[in-house]
Amino acid sequence: MATNVLEVNPERLWESLERSAEIGRFRDVGLRRLALSAEDKQMRDLFIEWVKDAGCTVEIDRLGNIFARRAGSDASLPPVAIGSHLDTQICGGRYDGILGVLCGLEVVRSLNDRGLTTKRGIEVICWTNEEGARFNPPMMGSMAFAGKIPLADVLNTRDDDGITVAEALDQIGYAGPAPVGRTFDSYFELHIEQAPVLDGEKCDVGIVVGGYKTKALRLLIKGDTGHAGGTPMGMRRNALVGAGYVIAAVNDIGLAYASDEGRTTTTRIESFPNLAGTYAEQVKLTLDFRHIDAKRFEAMDKDVRAAIAASAKKANVEIEVSEGWSFGPDLFAPDCIELLRTTAKELGLPYREMRSQAGHDAYAVATLAPTAMIFTPCHEGISHNVNENIELVRSVPGANLLLNAAVARANR
Amino acid sequence: MATNVLEVNPERLWESLERSAEIGRFRDVGLRRLALSAEDKQMRDLFIEWVKDAGCTVEIDRLGNIFARRAGSDASLPPVAIGSHLDTQICGGRYDGILGVLCGLEVVRSLNDRGLTTKRGIEVICWTNEEGARFNPPMMGSMAFAGKIPLADVLNTRDDDGITVAEALDQIGYAGPAPVGRTFDSYFELHIEQAPVLDGEKCDVGIVVGGYKTKALRLLIKGDTGHAGGTPMGMRRNALVGAGYVIAAVNDIGLAYASDEGRTTTTRIESFPNLAGTYAEQVKLTLDFRHIDAKRFEAMDKDVRAAIAASAKKANVEIEVSEGWSFGPDLFAPDCIELLRTTAKELGLPYREMRSQAGHDAYAVATLAPTAMIFTPCHEGISHNVNENIELVRSVPGANLLLNAAVARANR
Repeated sequence: MATNVLEVNPERLWESLERSAEIGRFRDVGLRRLALSAEDKQMRDLFIEWVKDAGCTVEIDRLGNIFARRAGSDASLPPVAIGSHLDTQICGGRYDGILGVLCGLEVVRSLNDRGLTTKRGIEVICWTNEEGARFNPPMMGSMAFAGKIPLADVLNTRDDDGITVAEALDQIGYAGPAPVGRTFDSYFELHIEQAPVLDGEKCDVGIVVGGYKTKALRLLIKGDTGHAGGTPMGMRRNALVGAGYVIAAVNDIGLAYASDEGRTTTTRIESFPNLAGTYAEQVKLTLDFRHIDAKRFEAMDKDVRAAIAASAKKANVEIEVSEGWSFGPDLFAPDCIELLRTTAKELGLPYREMRSQAGHDAYAVATLAPTAMIFTPCHEGISHNVNENIELVRSVPGANLLLNAAVARANR
Repeated sequence: MATNVLEVNPERLWESLERSAEIGRFRDVGLRRLALSAEDKQMRDLFIEWVKDAGCTVEIDRLGNIFARRAGSDASLPPVAIGSHLDTQICGGRYDGILGVLCGLEVVRSLNDRGLTTKRGIEVICWTNEEGARFNPPMMGSMAFAGKIPLADVLNTRDDDGITVAEALDQIGYAGPAPVGRTFDSYFELHIEQAPVLDGEKCDVGIVVGGYKTKALRLLIKGDTGHAGGTPMGMRRNALVGAGYVIAAVNDIGLAYASDEGRTTTTRIESFPNLAGTYAEQVKLTLDFRHIDAKRFEAMDKDVRAAIAASAKKANVEIEVSEGWSFGPDLFAPDCIELLRTTAKELGLPYREMRSQAGHDAYAVATLAPTAMIFTPCHEGISHNVNENIELVRSVPGANLLLNAAVARANR
């Protein structure tokens, strides 16, 4: 490594990670730290304590997005932003999101270690509710920040207990006064890959050049209740049967496009009345599909909709389809990508360029400021699972890339 | 009609039905009168008021089963029992169950009209929780009464809110002191058909000679959570996909056996964590299947189990299968069936013999006492649906058959 490059402190990074993994502990090795929950508040409080100890000033906006700024020498210039999220899935892992935030903190701490002041400030960001587990859609904080979804809609979104985002923010005291929306010089996000490519190729650094084109559909399947026994098969309008045909067909489509980097997922199902003895008059089903190639994505979209129509016909039900979230395949900023490439080479780090299959806050921020992402490997690509795992030695190269690229950009 | 036959009072029967249909009104024309709910209590209270007004004595057992007895001239002889249920499905109709109970009441009232005393007493019974909607399995009160399921298990069964049957009985004050189990001379149950055969054939009376062989399976589908985006299709263990393949395949089996009087139904599904962004690690699914022919039933059973195994393999999940309730094809008592035939002929009533596709309390009681059932038509066979409908003029023939057959048996 060249002598003029900076390095993070791996032990300190790991210690902070370990500390964060105590908050929301679930099933021994996992985390349940749902957005705006008591655990999320505890993690937010700890983050703010850490960044204040590191000399940062903190601002919080109406959505609970947290902005921790290390001042630069020229306060008139927009900062270089580094962000990710603190919330997890309901049976989530210890690294999804938080690794990126703590690598941002580690950038600040490493600069402090050396007493270095960058020209632009460095802003470390925690985006509210990236996961979309408690409140849907995902990436809510960054999407509303970027003006892609209305602020009022977000604040009125309810969880399964009927609590709104606005109420949940008030409950944990994270509805802040800062305006929603601000200016960045650039935005970098480090995240575990959540797919097995880097781990499989024994490569420690992914330079993410864009995302997979992704769309979610929400299905309202309308049948009619009837007797599980007496109703002749031909008379039945079992909404759950409609859902079953859709789930099977959509998975078959995913398998058909799998060799080709396509993915389909059925996730959430709600059936009514959902009791034995009578079949379902209504089922709600959420599914999503994604593909690296826009043309193949359009073909998948067509196939999925044809499968839904065929399932409705076969089950003798009606299916109303509405569009859920969609994102990708946004290409990140060429200058940010090139900076990551150049910096990786300077650091002597082998890397591979890739696209993200998962959605990230960076997608929304990319519409506001030049953006790029760094992926680090996770064991077998396992994520959104308590067994999500990483190795420190394979995460530090990405953290060092982030540090040096951010500083280069901040001194620009 | 021969001069020595008895007739019910159709207006009075209809008036009582209309009154009962006020209790638990749901979606204008339907009922939600779940077992042991406040509405069930209200209906029970009204029934007891009615039978007491009609001179009956009332006993209630530990399960909340209600026995209203019109005394016979020889108190040493076991009574002729007539029963059905007061509870409904969650989106149920106005006639399922209650029609049979009120026809029993009408037997008592019609005898009172004429000042007739039968040799044996007549006992009108309301069985607790026939539907199995709130507490599973269905036909709980009669099954435990007949010793087919343990009393303690029934009392400990919980609804979705965690309330046990014992607690619910206490809440509505229907845990009675009468011993569970008693002796009947015979048992008759009148019920709407809940299938479209009588309505389609414009026949008003079905003499039910037995049931369809029926079995429920409870599936525990075990996968693993993972990221909806990053996880390669081949690595996924989405329990909901396993459920989807099962639902589709089981419905296909039902369709394959449909011409042949087979039925399959998937009813209840519970998925965890059931959130967007992550797929399901566990799904519980309830299904049932039935067939008029025991050999074909065994073939269906084999097909269903093969479909479950194939679905598990295709979805890369594990599926544990446990047996739920099963009943049928119990053949009812030849002497009771013959009595119904003879009486129908005496009354000049056209009838058809048939088997019940639905489960009924009569199945359990048939293991204790000679039993038979009478079906009356319901519009298009629609049941377990708020639009369940009957015509009085097409229900009265069955009620008269019940009255005359019960009295003949009670004077035996």
